[in-house]
Amino acid sequence: MIKVSVMYPHQSNARFDHAYYRDKHMPLVQERLGSACRFYTVDKGLVGGSPGEAPTYVAMCHIYCDSVDAFNKAFAPHANEILGDIPNYTDLTPVLQISEVVVGQP
Amino acid sequence: MIKVSVMYPHQSNARFDHAYYRDKHMPLVQERLGSACRFYTVDKGLVGGSPGEAPTYVAMCHIYCDSVDAFNKAFAPHANEILGDIPNYTDLTPVLQISEVVVGQP
Repeated sequence: MIKVSVMYPHQSNARFDHAYYRDKHMPLVQERLGSACRFYTVDKGLVGGSPGEAPTYVAMCHIYCDSVDAFNKAFAPHANEILGDIPNYTDLTPVLQISEVVVGQP
Repeated sequence: MIKVSVMYPHQSNARFDHAYYRDKHMPLVQERLGSACRFYTVDKGLVGGSPGEAPTYVAMCHIYCDSVDAFNKAFAPHANEILGDIPNYTDLTPVLQISEVVVGQP
């Protein structure tokens, strides 16, 4: 299993609508990716490594798929629509990485 | 639920022993945190946002706890031992952030 992590770097004065992200954007991603997205998780950044320090990322999602290929094939036909929805909840540019799930949730 | 994400930024020529991290370090963390660590997950970075691009993080773990306070109380007495184990698998300095789990694994 792999996970595609989409991470939104914290910036002061940036806009991020967590409710839209949770209630509209991520369900759209799930619907468009279909069964290629086994499930997804969403995080809201609270704090960095020291008390009071801003988190590195204001929000993240992690999209779990069987393989990188499965993700790419499912995402490509809907890339424009999914990426085009980003301005509806943020003016941040996300950082993306794909990881192997070495230890998953029990 | 909150998650404590410990993220190791990718650097060329850096050392990271994924097997030690999975088989020794993270089980040590689980044992020392006890029931405060509900579970944890481990990722190995494969690729960044473009094919062939290095991932932002070579490895990550996510430690799930009921609250920030529960994590802090469980971690503090073992901080020296846990942090002291880091050089056994890497020469990287991790980035830490705590997030609220907005959507968890189904």
